[in-house]
Amino acid sequence: MQPVIQRDRPRWLAQHLKQDVLAGIIVGLLVIPQSLGYAVLAGLPPIYGVYASILPAIAYALIGASRSQAVGPVAITSLMTAQALAIAGAGQSIATMTALAAVLAVMTGGILLAAGVLRLGWLTQWMSRGVIAGFITASAVLIILGQLRYVLGLSGPKQSLAHLAHAVFNPSHWLHPETALLGLGTVGILGMARWRLAEGLQWHSLTPTQSAWLVRVFPLAVVIIMTAASHFGNWAQYGIAVVGKLEHGGLAFVFPPVPDLGQVMHLLPSAGLIALIGFISSAAVAQEYALRRKESFDPNRELIGLGLANLTAGISRGFPVTGGFSRTAIAVEAGAQTPLAGAFSALVMATILLFFTDFLKDLPYAVLGAGVIVAVSGLIDVRTLVQAWKSDRKDAWAYLVTLIGVVLFGLQAGLLAGVLLSFALILQRSSQPHCAVIGLYDQHGHFRNVLRYAVKTWPGVLILRIDERLFFGNTVAVRRFVEAQLQAYPDTRELIVSLSGVNDIDLSAQHMLQQLREDLQQRHIGMSLTEIRATVSDALRKSPIWSLFEGRIFLSTLDAVIAMTTVPSQEPEYHL
Amino acid sequence: MQPVIQRDRPRWLAQHLKQDVLAGIIVGLLVIPQSLGYAVLAGLPPIYGVYASILPAIAYALIGASRSQAVGPVAITSLMTAQALAIAGAGQSIATMTALAAVLAVMTGGILLAAGVLRLGWLTQWMSRGVIAGFITASAVLIILGQLRYVLGLSGPKQSLAHLAHAVFNPSHWLHPETALLGLGTVGILGMARWRLAEGLQWHSLTPTQSAWLVRVFPLAVVIIMTAASHFGNWAQYGIAVVGKLEHGGLAFVFPPVPDLGQVMHLLPSAGLIALIGFISSAAVAQEYALRRKESFDPNRELIGLGLANLTAGISRGFPVTGGFSRTAIAVEAGAQTPLAGAFSALVMATILLFFTDFLKDLPYAVLGAGVIVAVSGLIDVRTLVQAWKSDRKDAWAYLVTLIGVVLFGLQAGLLAGVLLSFALILQRSSQPHCAVIGLYDQHGHFRNVLRYAVKTWPGVLILRIDERLFFGNTVAVRRFVEAQLQAYPDTRELIVSLSGVNDIDLSAQHMLQQLREDLQQRHIGMSLTEIRATVSDALRKSPIWSLFEGRIFLSTLDAVIAMTTVPSQEPEYHL
Repeated sequence: MQPVIQRDRPRWLAQHLKQDVLAGIIVGLLVIPQSLGYAVLAGLPPIYGVYASILPAIAYALIGASRSQAVGPVAITSLMTAQALAIAGAGQSIATMTALAAVLAVMTGGILLAAGVLRLGWLTQWMSRGVIAGFITASAVLIILGQLRYVLGLSGPKQSLAHLAHAVFNPSHWLHPETALLGLGTVGILGMARWRLAEGLQWHSLTPTQSAWLVRVFPLAVVIIMTAASHFGNWAQYGIAVVGKLEHGGLAFVFPPVPDLGQVMHLLPSAGLIALIGFISSAAVAQEYALRRKESFDPNRELIGLGLANLTAGISRGFPVTGGFSRTAIAVEAGAQTPLAGAFSALVMATILLFFTDFLKDLPYAVLGAGVIVAVSGLIDVRTLVQAWKSDRKDAWAYLVTLIGVVLFGLQAGLLAGVLLSFALILQRSSQPHCAVIGLYDQHGHFRNVLRYAVKTWPGVLILRIDERLFFGNTVAVRRFVEAQLQAYPDTRELIVSLSGVNDIDLSAQHMLQQLREDLQQRHIGMSLTEIRATVSDALRKSPIWSLFEGRIFLSTLDAVIAMTTVPSQEPEYHL
Repeated sequence: MQPVIQRDRPRWLAQHLKQDVLAGIIVGLLVIPQSLGYAVLAGLPPIYGVYASILPAIAYALIGASRSQAVGPVAITSLMTAQALAIAGAGQSIATMTALAAVLAVMTGGILLAAGVLRLGWLTQWMSRGVIAGFITASAVLIILGQLRYVLGLSGPKQSLAHLAHAVFNPSHWLHPETALLGLGTVGILGMARWRLAEGLQWHSLTPTQSAWLVRVFPLAVVIIMTAASHFGNWAQYGIAVVGKLEHGGLAFVFPPVPDLGQVMHLLPSAGLIALIGFISSAAVAQEYALRRKESFDPNRELIGLGLANLTAGISRGFPVTGGFSRTAIAVEAGAQTPLAGAFSALVMATILLFFTDFLKDLPYAVLGAGVIVAVSGLIDVRTLVQAWKSDRKDAWAYLVTLIGVVLFGLQAGLLAGVLLSFALILQRSSQPHCAVIGLYDQHGHFRNVLRYAVKTWPGVLILRIDERLFFGNTVAVRRFVEAQLQAYPDTRELIVSLSGVNDIDLSAQHMLQQLREDLQQRHIGMSLTEIRATVSDALRKSPIWSLFEGRIFLSTLDAVIAMTTVPSQEPEYHL
């Protein structure tokens, strides 16, 4: 595998120039419908999707870790932007919302950049596959439900399930029939094209590559045809909502207003989440293509590239962006070889922004919404759930909890619940540590499990061994084990605990040992610790435990037994 | 240790009747100031603190797990109630807020009851000491900041730090001088009493027990004196806010209105958190006293008792309640022997509610706030942080992240961040699994680490062993180890991975193996798996991996080596 930065970078770029120009033009044209649609999904005017696709893509091309990644607004980060803006700027003007979106992009970029500089790329390994698949599926469901508003022409409050149900049962009150006809029709056409067209075309003697291309071009063709039909048929007169004149300020750096501390605090969790999810999905795509092309992939460089792209989005009237699977797939299949392809596609979009926006003014929102619905329906991932249910039930639960949590309580709560559950299920395995009652096995002072070996024990002396790190997750189980053994050996006057298998002991476990010692003192049972490892004894020396066990900490279990079984007034004998 | 329910329960109750009546009267009188103060802290009229202390205490006495626990409103759950109501009912009328508080109590009770029936008491073991101490400390800080409003007589927006800073720098604009004088004076008096009085009294030849009692009675005395002074001096005329006539509807069951689904969804996370934190703090207190009294403690029964108490609070104009440390300490020191003591203290409070509320109408809010500040200042726990920093740095980080998270982002976000961090820090240990390159050690087919033993290896065949469960947290590390070894042995044509130390394999790890296999196929390197344990092979059989590795899964590592080193057309020899 070769690093992406090569000494002869200019030559390498020049070699692939022709391919990259072509791929750039194709991508620039094909991603326009989704860019407009994702801006609407984010709660912004459609033109902002174009802004977010131009300068950020160029910024990523300069530094990003992937040769082929295409950066711009994608479905899930747009949904997260919408939720963040709904919290921070509910009911405010478009100008406030776009300013907040820019602030959000700057904050997302700052977080990504900081994570890249601090080399925190490894953090994403803490999301299990089940959690990620559940999160993406739930996001797709939320996006589809939200877009139904545009596709059905619903009136009334935004994105409420109750309202949606109402519309279904009383369609005449809520639906706009012409819009619904157009929207559902477009969903049908695009869906058919996506899921059936490729097959159908193959019968008509096209190669799979050709038919795949037709499928990709199809949404753009639909947008063009529908816009033209809307223009000449004046669909707006039937009450079908159209995009309208796209007011734009050209291509420019526009710094967002400096937010107050309250707004920053409100947006910070959302920005953190967008950074995390944006990075995970972008890295997944980039990593897959890097593997296919046998290129190396540096997650920390990807963080920095995405950070710069988002900072650029924030100062060029954009909103949070990341690497998108469908964008990148189009770019790769169009033959993009170097990051220059991304720059060229940005140029194409800039041209459209500057000269062709008038054409888009008759584009119906229902068509944009239909495009988004069909695009994200591919994100619904039931296969991973089925696979997990069969081969790793824990991951299936994490998937389901994330999915249900996101749909019921929102993106952040659902994701947190899923991550917490996946952590807890893994930790649960350590929460039942192996513990044993042991006795003296040979004259060398080796102690063994009384259940497995014929060993020597002493009346009134109970010797236990703990074979796992002690932490908050298993203190209860250890305490319970000790109580059970004290009941099994009711004549115990001295308890000796061997920590030979304990590598680490946290504050909760220290507290448990302390409570156990104090409790046993009240019950007139002595307690000693033996075979403490160096790392553990370092910790215990600095805790109140050390003085509580003074004179009762022994290097070897045999020493402890000798000290406890000899009469205290006598000099302890150190040989049995 | 004896179970709490005894066959001769009536006799047992009768034996202790006299002690319980006395203790009940003392507790009933002493907890009145804090009950009123915590209601104000929860954002409700003071009288609701009395409601919440009567019937819920009786309900807990009937079933709760602890003999000595005193149940009622406590500082932290009151703060959580305030935050929940601020989100769900911002700017609404008192009637709406009290109804929401009752709904919240019912939901909290339902969650606790369900957790008790499902025997989920063990769930609380997942909170490390650092997280709990950080959470309690941060809550105390928030409570004190919030009460400054009453103690200083601040005007303006509620509980904003900026506003507080403003008041400090421009005291004449914001402070109410007479209120501040009264409030800070009361804080000083109560603080002195709490921290110094006991010492001072001992010089005056009182026993420690007597002086401790004086310290406990002191807040009540201050409340009575201040109220009397306020009444006769007509302090309200100076602009000092007083509680006012406590309108109450007597002692009655009042069912809260049935909330709509949106409200339930808004309140559910708060109710869950109140249930969790309420249970943890209550169980900690009850467990400590159970240990001291050598009684057993059943966490699931405690859940059910607290659940019933909260349900009762919800239908008797209360708000969420739990077992409180200071309440319980007073009860125990007053000599409470059975749950009847709690019932008697409820009777005392009911008497006060019915006949003496007129007396309280001149009680200044500043005095109540001062009482709350002094009470919760004892919850600030820096010692645990110092202890953790010395003996378990992980717990110290969890403490700090929880503390800062709660103060900056609120109770739920901070607690979640702390729990997540404590999980992640524990899991991080498993994220660098032990892996080794192995070779044949003896003719019995035992393989050992090449770094430690003189073993036989085969050119072009790399044999690795993984010694840890494979899960999302260590797939990256394992993959990196494999790549590093492939670079160290660049002539490798066959990779054999022994899973003898892998007890469990999750979906992320399965995906990693699949990607590794596919990637190696592209690089013309074969890959085999050997010594798969039964649990792991059960999982793999149901995943796409099984077919991907078809013919490349072996029972023993030696079988794999033989198969890979013999010419494929020949029959593999099964003996070296």
